[in-house]
Amino acid sequence: MINVAVAGCAGRMGSTVVSAVNASDDMTLVCGIDPHGTDESYPVYESIEAALENKDFDVLVDFTQPKVVAHNVSEALKQGVNCVVGTTGLSIETLEDLASQATDDACLFFAPNFTTGAVLMMQFAKAAAPFFPEAEVIEYHHCNKLDAPSGTAISTARAIAESRDFVSTAPGKETELEGADGARGALVKGVPVHSVRSMGFVASQEVIFGSYGQTLTIRHDSWDRESYMPGVLLGIRSVESQRGLIVGLENFMGC
Amino acid sequence: MINVAVAGCAGRMGSTVVSAVNASDDMTLVCGIDPHGTDESYPVYESIEAALENKDFDVLVDFTQPKVVAHNVSEALKQGVNCVVGTTGLSIETLEDLASQATDDACLFFAPNFTTGAVLMMQFAKAAAPFFPEAEVIEYHHCNKLDAPSGTAISTARAIAESRDFVSTAPGKETELEGADGARGALVKGVPVHSVRSMGFVASQEVIFGSYGQTLTIRHDSWDRESYMPGVLLGIRSVESQRGLIVGLENFMGC
Amino acid sequence: MINVAVAGCAGRMGSTVVSAVNASDDMTLVCGIDPHGTDESYPVYESIEAALENKDFDVLVDFTQPKVVAHNVSEALKQGVNCVVGTTGLSIETLEDLASQATDDACLFFAPNFTTGAVLMMQFAKAAAPFFPEAEVIEYHHCNKLDAPSGTAISTARAIAESRDFVSTAPGKETELEGADGARGALVKGVPVHSVRSMGFVASQEVIFGSYGQTLTIRHDSWDRESYMPGVLLGIRSVESQRGLIVGLENFMGC
Amino acid sequence: MINVAVAGCAGRMGSTVVSAVNASDDMTLVCGIDPHGTDESYPVYESIEAALENKDFDVLVDFTQPKVVAHNVSEALKQGVNCVVGTTGLSIETLEDLASQATDDACLFFAPNFTTGAVLMMQFAKAAAPFFPEAEVIEYHHCNKLDAPSGTAISTARAIAESRDFVSTAPGKETELEGADGARGALVKGVPVHSVRSMGFVASQEVIFGSYGQTLTIRHDSWDRESYMPGVLLGIRSVESQRGLIVGLENFMGC
Repeated sequence: MINVAVAGCAGRMGSTVVSAVNASDDMTLVCGIDPHGTDESYPVYESIEAALENKDFDVLVDFTQPKVVAHNVSEALKQGVNCVVGTTGLSIETLEDLASQATDDACLFFAPNFTTGAVLMMQFAKAAAPFFPEAEVIEYHHCNKLDAPSGTAISTARAIAESRDFVSTAPGKETELEGADGARGALVKGVPVHSVRSMGFVASQEVIFGSYGQTLTIRHDSWDRESYMPGVLLGIRSVESQRGLIVGLENFMGC
Repeated sequence: MINVAVAGCAGRMGSTVVSAVNASDDMTLVCGIDPHGTDESYPVYESIEAALENKDFDVLVDFTQPKVVAHNVSEALKQGVNCVVGTTGLSIETLEDLASQATDDACLFFAPNFTTGAVLMMQFAKAAAPFFPEAEVIEYHHCNKLDAPSGTAISTARAIAESRDFVSTAPGKETELEGADGARGALVKGVPVHSVRSMGFVASQEVIFGSYGQTLTIRHDSWDRESYMPGVLLGIRSVESQRGLIVGLENFMGC
Repeated sequence: MINVAVAGCAGRMGSTVVSAVNASDDMTLVCGIDPHGTDESYPVYESIEAALENKDFDVLVDFTQPKVVAHNVSEALKQGVNCVVGTTGLSIETLEDLASQATDDACLFFAPNFTTGAVLMMQFAKAAAPFFPEAEVIEYHHCNKLDAPSGTAISTARAIAESRDFVSTAPGKETELEGADGARGALVKGVPVHSVRSMGFVASQEVIFGSYGQTLTIRHDSWDRESYMPGVLLGIRSVESQRGLIVGLENFMGC
Repeated sequence: MINVAVAGCAGRMGSTVVSAVNASDDMTLVCGIDPHGTDESYPVYESIEAALENKDFDVLVDFTQPKVVAHNVSEALKQGVNCVVGTTGLSIETLEDLASQATDDACLFFAPNFTTGAVLMMQFAKAAAPFFPEAEVIEYHHCNKLDAPSGTAISTARAIAESRDFVSTAPGKETELEGADGARGALVKGVPVHSVRSMGFVASQEVIFGSYGQTLTIRHDSWDRESYMPGVLLGIRSVESQRGLIVGLENFMGC
């Protein structure tokens, strides 16, 4: 049985983690940590120090804020508690520095994306890229997303470009008709990226690879933050047998 | 039994029409018309005049050249022969003028697109547009297509814009990140159009409609010029009961 | 301004209708009717009689129970109030009988499905069927759906079969390998229907039409009950200019 | 420069290999081997013995017949010529026996499928399976395919079942409505497989994985035998640095 504490347990992500841990047979929710969470059905502490003083736990899951996460993780690692971090905003240098403070072989695991399907999509795109002369990315998001392309789409396009050692010769932006600028999408390291913004989507992405007489398409559709949970649980289960700093869920997915 | 003559029978489209007519139980191929077609298994004449003089036919199918088509059609209509025209390049004025020369209630039928699925996609897009706040078009073509977007995609986007009486409020090109111009596609009358160019495609198009918690997607994939044939045969079968000028296969598709 | 009352306002569908009406510029929520709804921000009556006695409204929306709906609708129509009914379980005979009780040209509108995209999918499938030798239906639902195929898939397959006057000659169940019964799906009036059951879906359906060198695909994805609301609002806006019994949202969608 | 001989050069696959080799900058077509191929633009021998006697080549590509392939490969390997074999019908024992006859570290490479995208689809399906509670396979083929499901679909389903150590709990065939047998597809090792047969397809397959609030879809579309060629060329380029028996293109694709 893995004993888990959740920092940021009153937030949207944190409260979903609490539910997921409670629903798992091999985990026990020991406590939450959140200055805004009081009247819950489980013990909630205002600070990481109070939690560490009062409770024993094997893993700290942190979905808090950029300002708070480093302190939480530092305190936990010093006490030998493994950390699973989804809070963004920490530089790789800060992550390395934090990991170096760990005692008892505690592991610091950070993932920019906990959605198993999205992580696999990225890994598969990298693996396929060398074998297909052409690749394009189409991402679909709700209308509240006010930047295009998405961060995942940019990362995917970059990964494709780095994985293949050639430049696609497909017709480019020079073939766009007058008045139709943008038809061929945004070029990210030479990979066209198209962004659809529409009601009816949450977060979807399609990577299309083309070769002689064939296409290979990898698509991920995500509908709510529940989609993060299998990845978070995988992280919790995996950190105990690890040490040092690990970045990226793909390290626990065998690909 | 409908007696059919095919002008341009030595060309790519014309020869496919010849095969399709031969394979149809309710049609007879009477002759071809083509200065370049001689050693065929059916009579081929060098000119429309020679064909009309030597043979009786109910319908002339014309897949020739912009320079030749008007003369062929004019001669046929004057003799009361119905015409099914796929050759592009005739203005609507020229078509009307030609139709006015018809005798015996002969019909002049012209279609810019004979692919049944593509025509339905367009009609369905028009019908759906008023009910969905957002609509985007993605078209996929082979790498030899050196203009983007495709003509069909432009027509579809225009038809959507005309069919709905509102302007979509989805995030536009102003949300494109720096250096990522084109992510939101080309705006055609306010409808984003995205063009994919890749090996592995011939001609495909997807129209995506979005509303509260739902999307409706209409997709057409076309793999070879055979896809034109059901539409050509439908035209041949339909013209006899029609008269005057008819433009567009949708007139024979009940939608 | 259309004055609206919502019967079943404390239920899942009814409360969503309340929100949608409140969010519409051209409608006013006059009251709710629900024995289980008391502490709301709008007047709620226990019965249709109480509501009709105390409030004036143009349209009654009913998302209640099979046992209650007939009484509600009968009382409303007798008072000349138009009805928009989403509650299932009324036979066509009962609906006709109810409609005959209407005074002042009140209209009774019932729709088995208020999702605009699903209704269009069905209409488009009917329109396309005669032009494609083959058609198959694939539906995707969550794992809580314990019957296969879905009602919508069965209706779609039947509509396709009725719309075309031929039987598909595609390879059938006789081509299923030993031990692989079911590969070719369930035959509904000769149309193969395939049911996917998986986490990650709510309610999706794809209709695939095939012909020479082309396919036409119509797909609808629905993610929550919000997807019903545009159809309910369309019904509310449309009933006032109608009379008698109208069944099916397609009557208000011009297709 | 790699010197290549093609056995079965007059056949459909073999002649496509000849074209692909001729179009490659790093290969030279030295000769063909085929009793039915005479009037070609390159030397063609009637037997492997004649070819080996008259020409030097590094790699023999064999797309012949089950009866002929073993003899061809045996002769070539004994002379130290690497073999790339696409002809089916050889058991693993026969392949091992042939490989043991090789001299000079010659390599025997056999692939049941040379389509890069199909091979990747299979590998990706294996990699994803452990992370998704549900998986289903849908395959789409032309109407001339008279067995269902396809061999690739069966292999994919088996690979998924072996890769995950759990049984899906999605609703099964017991939820099929009366008269709708087959809706949930064919169960292959517990994985539902659905077969679509329709004009407009050549060979396509989709693998759909479902988890909490997300789906991951891997789709491969193949339109002609050209799609085999990148895989054949990859095999030709890879065998020289290998020895012994290698089965499966995935061994040369880094996944």
